[in-house]
Amino acid sequence: MTVETSPDGRQGSPAVDSAARILELLSRYRTRTSTLSEIAAALELPKSTVLRILRTLQAHSLVHHDAETRRYQLGFFTAVLGSRAAEGLDSFTRTRPFLTEISERTGLTAALVQRVSADRLMYVAEQHGAGPSTVHISVGNRFPMFEVSFGRWWVAFSTPAEREALVPAALPAVTDRTPTDREAYLRDCAALGSRSVLVTRDEYIPGVFTSSCAALDPRGQLEGVVVALGFSQSVDGPAEQAVHTVMTDVATRLNAHI
Amino acid sequence: MTVETSPDGRQGSPAVDSAARILELLSRYRTRTSTLSEIAAALELPKSTVLRILRTLQAHSLVHHDAETRRYQLGFFTAVLGSRAAEGLDSFTRTRPFLTEISERTGLTAALVQRVSADRLMYVAEQHGAGPSTVHISVGNRFPMFEVSFGRWWVAFSTPAEREALVPAALPAVTDRTPTDREAYLRDCAALGSRSVLVTRDEYIPGVFTSSCAALDPRGQLEGVVVALGFSQSVDGPAEQAVHTVMTDVATRLNAHI
Repeated sequence: MTVETSPDGRQGSPAVDSAARILELLSRYRTRTSTLSEIAAALELPKSTVLRILRTLQAHSLVHHDAETRRYQLGFFTAVLGSRAAEGLDSFTRTRPFLTEISERTGLTAALVQRVSADRLMYVAEQHGAGPSTVHISVGNRFPMFEVSFGRWWVAFSTPAEREALVPAALPAVTDRTPTDREAYLRDCAALGSRSVLVTRDEYIPGVFTSSCAALDPRGQLEGVVVALGFSQSVDGPAEQAVHTVMTDVATRLNAHI
Repeated sequence: MTVETSPDGRQGSPAVDSAARILELLSRYRTRTSTLSEIAAALELPKSTVLRILRTLQAHSLVHHDAETRRYQLGFFTAVLGSRAAEGLDSFTRTRPFLTEISERTGLTAALVQRVSADRLMYVAEQHGAGPSTVHISVGNRFPMFEVSFGRWWVAFSTPAEREALVPAALPAVTDRTPTDREAYLRDCAALGSRSVLVTRDEYIPGVFTSSCAALDPRGQLEGVVVALGFSQSVDGPAEQAVHTVMTDVATRLNAHI
């Protein structure tokens, strides 16, 4: 996460911004336990500033400091906050049972994708697949909207004017299977609706099959995309049909309210 | 959570302290969605300060602002951080399966209690009971160590000198069944070990039965207490024996490493 100004561009709090970036750093797998020096270097902040913020976060049990290893990690109150956040967020509570259902019925990994800025998405929840080997996704990582197939959902649920602004003139060719014709891309997006399932194979990541559907809020706005991910090779003809049946069923029930 | 100075008393960051208190406020059930004015009033902070902090938290998706209701709630990145924190915290990952096991085998509510300051404890995780009516606990709330039975575990795993400092001269009589004799209390504590189960009935909350055991870290330090809670009336003779069997089994396996 880079330093962001507040949504309307007005002044935020630099110390709180740094605190959020520290928490974010400690949420990544590679840097989940870090020393003061490592945190200061990664965020390009003075050690004295970082120490001051870490002490405050530690006082609230948002970070934990191991006196022996001198490393910081997320604290248990962060876990408490997180479970409260998940309970309170409609998109989590509504989609969670569907993620479980998808992973159980298909054996694939199920995930919830949300939009985190104008053109960035994030995997915000995951349910590991029950199959013998499954695709692992990294909850919390951000990625460009047009470097995954799921970006099409946000285009689909935008107004024509929003689409024009959103979809770049040159779509990135992530692999040689990525669709890059803008007009064809827009037509594909326009065909997606609340009961649709979008299937891709090797389009953005070689070897990965995805099947996704929209999760709409009570007002019919797109609040997330529910995805099933598997290895292309193992999701062959009959298996793909089975996944399709499950995802169509999920899309219908998930969006039954609109 | 009141304003706390940093653990060693040195200067922390007031803005980060306020941010943590805002997140804490939004994690409580009664105040999980709040307006700017409500937050500012609850924390006795100027609205301009709170707005500045909220904007920054919002930019990081740590809080979510509903433009229609003008209410703030915890944002989805808080949920992401929380699941990462839980994954990284040994105490959560090690005890979680045992909480599930206790609730499934006994029908009671299972919880993990941790120490959050010198003399305060907190329920940090809960697994709802499967029974027809169960005791509900409030994850995230802090309570005095000597106003619950679980405090005895921290006394048990302290050195004699620490015990002297920790246990107050006058133990609070929360109900007329609360043990208040300090010498008897210290003897009870001294009898508790890694395989022990502590059973109480109506001692601190009338009508509530508890059975608890220690969760020790790899070095043998007490990192939490695993608790089963139920209604005293429904945990009668044979049911109590069944709970005892489960909790003894859990204590043995949970602390098999020491």
